Amino acid sequence: MSDTIDFWIDLSSPYAYLASERIEDIAARHGRKVRWRPFMLGAVFKTEETKPLVFYPRKGKYSEMDLARSAREHGIPFRIPSKFPVPTVAASRAFYAIEDASGHDAARDYARAVFRAYYVDDRDISDAEVALDIAGECGHDRAAVAEAIASPEIKAKFKEATDTAIEELGIFGAPFIIVDGEAFWGNDRLEMVDRWLERGGW
Amino acid sequence: MSDTIDFWIDLSSPYAYLASERIEDIAARHGRKVRWRPFMLGAVFKTEETKPLVFYPRKGKYSEMDLARSAREHGIPFRIPSKFPVPTVAASRAFYAIEDASGHDAARDYARAVFRAYYVDDRDISDAEVALDIAGECGHDRAAVAEAIASPEIKAKFKEATDTAIEELGIFGAPFIIVDGEAFWGNDRLEMVDRWLERGGW
Repeated sequence: MSDTIDFWIDLSSPYAYLASERIEDIAARHGRKVRWRPFMLGAVFKTEETKPLVFYPRKGKYSEMDLARSAREHGIPFRIPSKFPVPTVAASRAFYAIEDASGHDAARDYARAVFRAYYVDDRDISDAEVALDIAGECGHDRAAVAEAIASPEIKAKFKEATDTAIEELGIFGAPFIIVDGEAFWGNDRLEMVDRWLERGGW
Repeated sequence: MSDTIDFWIDLSSPYAYLASERIEDIAARHGRKVRWRPFMLGAVFKTEETKPLVFYPRKGKYSEMDLARSAREHGIPFRIPSKFPVPTVAASRAFYAIEDASGHDAARDYARAVFRAYYVDDRDISDAEVALDIAGECGHDRAAVAEAIASPEIKAKFKEATDTAIEELGIFGAPFIIVDGEAFWGNDRLEMVDRWLERGGW
């Protein structure tokens, strides 16, 4: 059994962003490491017959209120971006390119920077140029990342991650957290993950 | 500001059942009373373009696992009933008939008995005869409840509750908990309700 917690995210998911600001601390308290895994959530909407939260009339309105409230509880800066939701293919590929070149911790720091660029600074992370700018701001060679995200190898890595998430693991939402084979869906399950780790399951 | 917590439920919702076993204790710790309000969740599925959880391929499978796990954590007896989900018109009308005749606490106790009949004893609560049997078992006059649930007044009460939930309050799922005008959706928000009551909001 690996001691790693898999943290499946879509880089434009607001609940994934909120969870991303807390999961490292929770894992660390229990001596665990987090493995971040961006995938393309949109790929599951069709077969699951679901859609982004904001496209449901009542659920969408509730979610906007709940996101703001959930952020306030933990002092996490948050606003719904001007362009929302967006696809994040370039940024997700950049994550895997950075992981490939510089290791997982560097990729995790990049993902956090992408989330904050979107939910704090309202930058359009669906724009490949913005995704590359953020890589540059994180200290990576912008041109090298640009070349990598256009390569078949990195494209395949993101596709494989999405296939693993949806086909193999049956994931249908984000964030989706897997601890010792046990699946937890949603930012609001972080407390349950914490209790699960504390008690070793139940 | 009322000190009452409104607890909107559908009598066949499994997450509403799990919440129903804990919400009274949480409210009591903060000196609050709970006002139970059954409504017909199915009435919102069409306009919201949603459906019962079990009809989503991936989300349905996850939910079955999550329901069992959530029940285990709190030692609540639970199994998915043989016939699931079901409409609960007769039982919901019986709730309002009992509230009318015997007060809210009696109606609440009836709702708890209906939930347990369904999720513990696997009885078919969609059957009006079963709904009336449970009323009898709770000490009510079975014939009087049978007459009441066929009356226009009680039918109107259940319809009004459903209209209030969906049209006025924008409710789209169950359980839906309203504390001082603040809405919380889902069994997994009970802990947040607890913290909200403790801190008086944030």
